[in-house]
Amino acid sequence: MWIIAPISALASVVVGGFLYSYVSRQDSGTERMREIAAAIKEGADAFLKREYMTLAYFVAVMSAALALFIDPIMAPVYIFGSACSALAGYFGMQVALKANVRTASAARKGINYAFPIAFRGGAVMGLSVVGMGLLGVSIIYGLTGNPEAILGFSFGASAMALFAKAGGGIYTKTADIGADLVGKVEMGIPEDDPRNPAVIADNVGDNVGDVAGMGADLFDSYVASIVAAMILGKELGAAQSIISMDQIPLIFAGLGIVASLIGVAIVRVGRKGNPGKALNFGTYSTCIMFSVFTLIATYLLKINIGIWIATNIGLLSGVIIGITTDYFTSIDRPPAIKTASSSRTGAAINIITGFSYGLISLFPPLLGIGVASVIAYYVSEYFGISGLYGISMAAVGMLSIVGMIIAGDAYGPISDNAKGIAEQAGLSEDVIEVADRLDAAGNTSKAITKGFAIGAAGLTVISLLATYQVLTRSGGFDLMNPLVLAGMLVGISVPPLFSAMVMLGVSKNAFRMIEEIRRQFREIPGLKEGREGVKPDYARCVDIATTGALKELLPASVVSILITLAVGFVGGIEALGGYLGGSIMSGLIFALLMANAGGLWDNAKKYIEAGAFGGKGSDAHKAAVIGDTVGDPFKDTAGPSLNTLITVMSLVASIFAGLIAKYNLMILLGI
Amino acid sequence: MWIIAPISALASVVVGGFLYSYVSRQDSGTERMREIAAAIKEGADAFLKREYMTLAYFVAVMSAALALFIDPIMAPVYIFGSACSALAGYFGMQVALKANVRTASAARKGINYAFPIAFRGGAVMGLSVVGMGLLGVSIIYGLTGNPEAILGFSFGASAMALFAKAGGGIYTKTADIGADLVGKVEMGIPEDDPRNPAVIADNVGDNVGDVAGMGADLFDSYVASIVAAMILGKELGAAQSIISMDQIPLIFAGLGIVASLIGVAIVRVGRKGNPGKALNFGTYSTCIMFSVFTLIATYLLKINIGIWIATNIGLLSGVIIGITTDYFTSIDRPPAIKTASSSRTGAAINIITGFSYGLISLFPPLLGIGVASVIAYYVSEYFGISGLYGISMAAVGMLSIVGMIIAGDAYGPISDNAKGIAEQAGLSEDVIEVADRLDAAGNTSKAITKGFAIGAAGLTVISLLATYQVLTRSGGFDLMNPLVLAGMLVGISVPPLFSAMVMLGVSKNAFRMIEEIRRQFREIPGLKEGREGVKPDYARCVDIATTGALKELLPASVVSILITLAVGFVGGIEALGGYLGGSIMSGLIFALLMANAGGLWDNAKKYIEAGAFGGKGSDAHKAAVIGDTVGDPFKDTAGPSLNTLITVMSLVASIFAGLIAKYNLMILLGI
Repeated sequence: MWIIAPISALASVVVGGFLYSYVSRQDSGTERMREIAAAIKEGADAFLKREYMTLAYFVAVMSAALALFIDPIMAPVYIFGSACSALAGYFGMQVALKANVRTASAARKGINYAFPIAFRGGAVMGLSVVGMGLLGVSIIYGLTGNPEAILGFSFGASAMALFAKAGGGIYTKTADIGADLVGKVEMGIPEDDPRNPAVIADNVGDNVGDVAGMGADLFDSYVASIVAAMILGKELGAAQSIISMDQIPLIFAGLGIVASLIGVAIVRVGRKGNPGKALNFGTYSTCIMFSVFTLIATYLLKINIGIWIATNIGLLSGVIIGITTDYFTSIDRPPAIKTASSSRTGAAINIITGFSYGLISLFPPLLGIGVASVIAYYVSEYFGISGLYGISMAAVGMLSIVGMIIAGDAYGPISDNAKGIAEQAGLSEDVIEVADRLDAAGNTSKAITKGFAIGAAGLTVISLLATYQVLTRSGGFDLMNPLVLAGMLVGISVPPLFSAMVMLGVSKNAFRMIEEIRRQFREIPGLKEGREGVKPDYARCVDIATTGALKELLPASVVSILITLAVGFVGGIEALGGYLGGSIMSGLIFALLMANAGGLWDNAKKYIEAGAFGGKGSDAHKAAVIGDTVGDPFKDTAGPSLNTLITVMSLVASIFAGLIAKYNLMILLGI
Repeated sequence: MWIIAPISALASVVVGGFLYSYVSRQDSGTERMREIAAAIKEGADAFLKREYMTLAYFVAVMSAALALFIDPIMAPVYIFGSACSALAGYFGMQVALKANVRTASAARKGINYAFPIAFRGGAVMGLSVVGMGLLGVSIIYGLTGNPEAILGFSFGASAMALFAKAGGGIYTKTADIGADLVGKVEMGIPEDDPRNPAVIADNVGDNVGDVAGMGADLFDSYVASIVAAMILGKELGAAQSIISMDQIPLIFAGLGIVASLIGVAIVRVGRKGNPGKALNFGTYSTCIMFSVFTLIATYLLKINIGIWIATNIGLLSGVIIGITTDYFTSIDRPPAIKTASSSRTGAAINIITGFSYGLISLFPPLLGIGVASVIAYYVSEYFGISGLYGISMAAVGMLSIVGMIIAGDAYGPISDNAKGIAEQAGLSEDVIEVADRLDAAGNTSKAITKGFAIGAAGLTVISLLATYQVLTRSGGFDLMNPLVLAGMLVGISVPPLFSAMVMLGVSKNAFRMIEEIRRQFREIPGLKEGREGVKPDYARCVDIATTGALKELLPASVVSILITLAVGFVGGIEALGGYLGGSIMSGLIFALLMANAGGLWDNAKKYIEAGAFGGKGSDAHKAAVIGDTVGDPFKDTAGPSLNTLITVMSLVASIFAGLIAKYNLMILLGI
């Protein structure tokens, strides 16, 4: 029966291919537009090529280590996971690079022409992520019949995602901060102005960071949640239905893809339509379809109803978390308005206020994840199913509709890019306004998506911790065990350490970028005045962003993996369990804080730009720009990498658990 | 034998009294100086009076609740704890208010005259805190013979400390930010300039926030660490020596006071001497004496050597944590210098850089607390003592020398105030320079103190968690228990919530203050120019700070207590255990992050002011001032309250544990 998984996965990839060719066939605009698009594509391709080449060494070393120390099968499986993740990101980015200019071109005809291009461009990413992910899992499961082997696949995908997020995140913020601080603040020229030497790098950044990076991130959560549920199903499950419990996650994931395919198909927007509403309609419809499809499957396959309930609790809590997140970041809600208002007393108060609301915003989603876990656990137990398996199915439920979620999310940077191209190509005001409306809709749907992504990652890593416990046959991780406690104290400090290394990477690199932009404005005659025929040296800025990102890419990720192994080999299985618990806690704290505070500062600035408190150019606006700049690496570099980081740490722990159980310092000391 | 505790405590109070009269006898300077000092004293007294009156209601309600629901004995004991804490803070502040002007006056004769006044002023605070604390504990133990009764005393002290920290912290930063942003940044007048309407409020803030608040904070950790060790000693201890294990903490704490008394006596500085060195010498000598005294007591009283080792591991790790903290905040180390350097690209990059180093700075102390716990635990077990008792004795060891620590810490705001008075009174340049040198020494010793305080709080709350477990006879808090996990997810979100509420209080209040200062500069003719005889309306600013602080004081603290009870009555004993564990984790994260990032931004600014990167008035300086202003509520309001918050939460849990075990939703649901 689980054959539905590879079939729907394949269908997803095929539909993605059709949408790709649909996007490709659209008109790519004026020569100037094509020229800009080509420059962005060139920059993005160059970055990705150099990034993957750098990572090839890491993949080689890691797969050798896995083969040597763990199991020879791990090496090909690991490489396969890395390749699938990279490929999904690459595909998604290629179509985004086509869709941006075509969306801009279609915006000349109206929003109902432009919207489908941007959305379907995003959908290619979404469908290829879930398609490649579930296909890969199915292939390995089909070949080995052993869910544990898929851990290696998941690890490959996650490690790749971590690098993609960190590298892309550093790239995009280097360019963005540089372009904003010198262009907007110092020179007073508008965003996306072609005179700005960093404008192409900034557009490249949207693609390598927001599209490729984000796709890799959700690829990794998606695969990890399925793998964790499969392992727990195999280890903890009695025969509850005519199919074995490790296959239920595959079936439900397959149905999630079917729901997403339909969801993608029904998203439409009319001539006067509201793209934000259309995206939300697509998301909610997909949720409902998933719920119905899985209920039917539960009935037909005589699956324990507890599993269905647990799965749907996950989905429901994802929606709730998304909505509360929306409250804290939305432009028309008190947190953003008060932060905007506080900008009147300067940048410092703006930052303190936004940071404070970011701290408050932790409460609802953390409570939500906690309550969802408890309900999923006890409902499952009530129906005679392992509670930990129930939690893992809640994670699968939350991530089941990820194809649709990514489609809506990738739509954002595509329309952002489209707007950039429209402005650089000097298209008319009302075209830019159409592009603006598309872009704004992207921001609305993004908030819900982000809450979803973090909630899903939270439940996923909790089920990965359960997987680790089950695989190590550990009695549990008692806080009063000093090794667990000490492990936890170290664990909570790793996500902050990682964030800091990545953000310092951004600030170091932004420094170089700013110096270069200032130099160009100083040394290229006529650039600032926009004299005919004078062009800045875009390539130099693209190069600075690329080189810097690649340099800062590896250290943070490698350090985190090494500390994980060190804690294991020093403290043993239980210390490592506490360590994972701690890293989940502080990973969630900082992921939520950084995403929400960052989003809030951004919208507080936009609120002022819309005319409040003196509007653009006022002192309040200048203060809000500083807050927004602080928020940039928070929300687009450090914050979103943390989901992936804790997944990677959990997978490293599970994979090396056997080795650690045998060789560790505590055994040597006889403790 | 434990009679040594009340005797040394009494001695401490008596010596404090002598030092108080020593300070009072000193010359209080010119009429203008006395006038300024009187204004500061008036503001501080008014605030404290109104604060205590507000809190009287809370104390009444809480003691009634304790008498009604827990045990009638709890009410008087709770009130006694609140009173002792308030009294120690009040004493300390009174002497600080005398010492500041007298230090300024003596600075005219030289640093060797001024230093002893400032230091002994601080010592009164230190000695009265440990004296009153240990005396109170001894009295209740003497009367009841039951360590559990002391929990109520500890709770009284901690709740009072929480309010004192929150209220004082909001007050001091309201005034400080207001004075800086309008005075220094907008008007370009120096710090502590008498034309600034907020200058008196700023000086008052140093006293109510940094002196009274800090004293209350360490009072609470000190008492809590002793209580936790006594309870664990009683519950877990076999008869290991001729005295019972619940009395060993009292004896060691008494010896700590003796060491601190000698330490205070030997701190001296010569005519050309270095006050920073003198303070550090005092601290290290006190540590060594404590170590020797307790070793002798261990030998004479045949105490298990494991207990001595655990205690001294605590002390040693406190020193190590202090030194690493120093690295991350010191003005001459890479983190501060790089943050200063990054200011050249603007405030945003300054903030990102400082925040990042703050995140990195979590790693060493958290690792330190973890390693200290593991070693203290296993060394104790090796010598046949309960490991949890060993951890609690490590906390006692860390806090044993707190009398000396506070003396050095309270010295800081006293010399800061002295400098302020010297400037407002128009004393000569070289007097101000002496005051400056005194002030700078305070900053150096403060870093080590802060690390100590946070490390001590960490170990203390860990032993309070152990106390909670032992008192509830719980089997432990297993992370894989969904109730523990959900409790933990809620627990990690409370310290951020509390910090945010307090910081929003600051930013709301600072807004009012800034408007008022701007108004005065606008409406009072001749004020900005400093025309002879024109004085600002200081009282109005003092009033704004007071009213605002009192309004914002209660909500955050009450909400935290209510959430703690809600988690208990909904989730039961194990959920509450997880909740405490979570609050410890995120409490430590944010306490360290905020203290260190705040200190770092402060020193980065000072580094630029010393002439680097363009010096005072440069763009880099303006950026660094914004960073410093963000850091102000971090390091002086939210950060230092968190130690106290997690102590309060732990004590609430332990006190209500009996009730919660009987009545909670999970029992109702049959889970």
